[in-house]
Amino acid sequence: MVYAVGLMSGTSLDGVDAALVEISGKNETTSVELLEFLTCPFEEKTLQKIRETLSLESSDVEKICSLNIELGELFAKAVLMVCDKAGISSDELSFIGSHGQTLFHIPFARADFYASTFQIGDPAVICERTKTTVVSNFRERDMAVGGQGAPIVPYSEYILYQKPDTTRLLQNIGGIGNVTVIPKSGKLADIVAFDTGPGNVIMNELCLYFFDQEYDKDGLHASRGTVDQALLKELMTHPYIQKSYPKTTGREDFGKQFTATLLKKWQLPPEDFIATATMFTAKSIAKAVKEFIEGDTELIIGGGGSYNQTLVSMIKQELPNVQVLIQEEIGYSSEAKEAIAMAVLANQTLQHCTGNVPNATGAKKAVPLGSITYY
Amino acid sequence: MVYAVGLMSGTSLDGVDAALVEISGKNETTSVELLEFLTCPFEEKTLQKIRETLSLESSDVEKICSLNIELGELFAKAVLMVCDKAGISSDELSFIGSHGQTLFHIPFARADFYASTFQIGDPAVICERTKTTVVSNFRERDMAVGGQGAPIVPYSEYILYQKPDTTRLLQNIGGIGNVTVIPKSGKLADIVAFDTGPGNVIMNELCLYFFDQEYDKDGLHASRGTVDQALLKELMTHPYIQKSYPKTTGREDFGKQFTATLLKKWQLPPEDFIATATMFTAKSIAKAVKEFIEGDTELIIGGGGSYNQTLVSMIKQELPNVQVLIQEEIGYSSEAKEAIAMAVLANQTLQHCTGNVPNATGAKKAVPLGSITYY
Repeated sequence: MVYAVGLMSGTSLDGVDAALVEISGKNETTSVELLEFLTCPFEEKTLQKIRETLSLESSDVEKICSLNIELGELFAKAVLMVCDKAGISSDELSFIGSHGQTLFHIPFARADFYASTFQIGDPAVICERTKTTVVSNFRERDMAVGGQGAPIVPYSEYILYQKPDTTRLLQNIGGIGNVTVIPKSGKLADIVAFDTGPGNVIMNELCLYFFDQEYDKDGLHASRGTVDQALLKELMTHPYIQKSYPKTTGREDFGKQFTATLLKKWQLPPEDFIATATMFTAKSIAKAVKEFIEGDTELIIGGGGSYNQTLVSMIKQELPNVQVLIQEEIGYSSEAKEAIAMAVLANQTLQHCTGNVPNATGAKKAVPLGSITYY
Repeated sequence: MVYAVGLMSGTSLDGVDAALVEISGKNETTSVELLEFLTCPFEEKTLQKIRETLSLESSDVEKICSLNIELGELFAKAVLMVCDKAGISSDELSFIGSHGQTLFHIPFARADFYASTFQIGDPAVICERTKTTVVSNFRERDMAVGGQGAPIVPYSEYILYQKPDTTRLLQNIGGIGNVTVIPKSGKLADIVAFDTGPGNVIMNELCLYFFDQEYDKDGLHASRGTVDQALLKELMTHPYIQKSYPKTTGREDFGKQFTATLLKKWQLPPEDFIATATMFTAKSIAKAVKEFIEGDTELIIGGGGSYNQTLVSMIKQELPNVQVLIQEEIGYSSEAKEAIAMAVLANQTLQHCTGNVPNATGAKKAVPLGSITYY
């Protein structure tokens, strides 16, 4: 067993998740145990800079050049903090797997744009500050072999969650929602994974707009509102929701611009608006997973959305034949799941083993993911 | 000996330089021989996209995301072309060192910007298309230990050019000019290197403006003009030219904007304007290297500027006590120098050896450079 840290900085912009794990083996023999976890929140100033670089209007090459290093420093800080919390020195780490902050994702080529994905957070800075080898930029290699670069966690989920007698639907609800289907006693090749649609992104944008709050804590606003059926019906006609898997989406499709358009078109009380957005996420998840329900089936919710009680009960209501659980209920950390996955992928890459699931991303073959910056 | 390819895509935007080398050893025992070289020019459409992403006004996160992959494909094509020209398969390569296209460089932190550097050209794409391990992003690690991330070639220059009885000034003239001073019988620690100021960048901008030509072929326009002493005097007062080494600059300081300001302020015949810009490059080089002249001293000019005969003769005129030569005159390829350096740096990194020269970049220590994407 060696120590490693996985770093995730998701589309929710909650901050940097750092998971300290003990890990050994590779491929199906991988064993990984979570020792410590923390989220290092972004300061408002940094958050502002990230938001600027995410937008077509306010991003530019200078801001991106600088933010790449600034985030590298922050990611390194998160590593040092999680080590400190666990009482070990970063010198004792064998490696770090860092996802980086996604600035943009173009799953399919169109007009003058190549299919591409773009994460920043300089691995060289993380490497120097922590005196540890870093594996980074996991998504690009999958896209280089024809994949959509997403979802990126199914390999790790297969390792951690496979069960002989139960189909498990692992539903992550970050900014965007994504599901990994692990059929009972299935092999790696049987796994299906795709983005279900919006996660918290629309709700968060609405909370920011109406209440100047980052997100709907515990789903309180949504719990006080009434779902507007007309708006919900329109939302469910969104082409992404109607499309079959494999498919992948991003903040580009359901973020600031999308929400602004809704706000312009629909005049609703704030809490009804948020309740409807919450139900949209619930219904889009239910629609996406329905075809995989067979016998004993569990839907295990992870990510920030698992703490939104209104959202979770709406999902339960939409999926009456499924046992809906949150990660903590099966003994896993919901928050830590994606960060742990980055440690698992890095462990694969350092042993020249593959980390993508072609069935999930649409890639032509399984490949090792990421680039290695050796200390 | 193994085969390797070094890739350079410089600030001149001439295209992708690919050098196929045979290489062995490491550190001072490195032996490297150029087998084949070519420049794969950018198509006008690609050039346009690069220019857009270089500019603060027209760059955005989507264009950068896409161009990273587009350039990765182009870099891979250049590797396949140089292998083809040499009659070998890319399968036979041991590794590729890819510099990437620099989009931005902030040598020192200022206001809200971190000291940072930003190169693109996805290594995962190069790796998959060529079936070869790629080392990329060399500059970031040097900056992570306090260096300016430039110049990046001195390590390779030391390996290739050291001479016991002659001080050698290796002057590269790309978009920007940079010099490496290799004192007679000096050690790696004695090497000094820095950017001298503009290389071809101002001349090129002027040729584009006046003649819709990419550059001043053979220095013909400059040869027909007369240097304007007033403009030259003003140019030589530029703070960068007055500053002592270590120092580093980029297109940001002497590029499109700088030239546009000159064009607004000074009304001169086109050929006088170009002659003056050419003399400015010559004089800034002479000023920068003067203090290093001691006994037998050679100034060896490389890069696109070495083919500008007017520029070379102006430099000779400014440095009467120095033997001014171009790379080809000492049996080296001027064009291939930087691309070869990328293969040398990759060779170091893959053997966990350092590649920066702290005395040149201002880094606190020597470190291995770049990230490795294993095939």
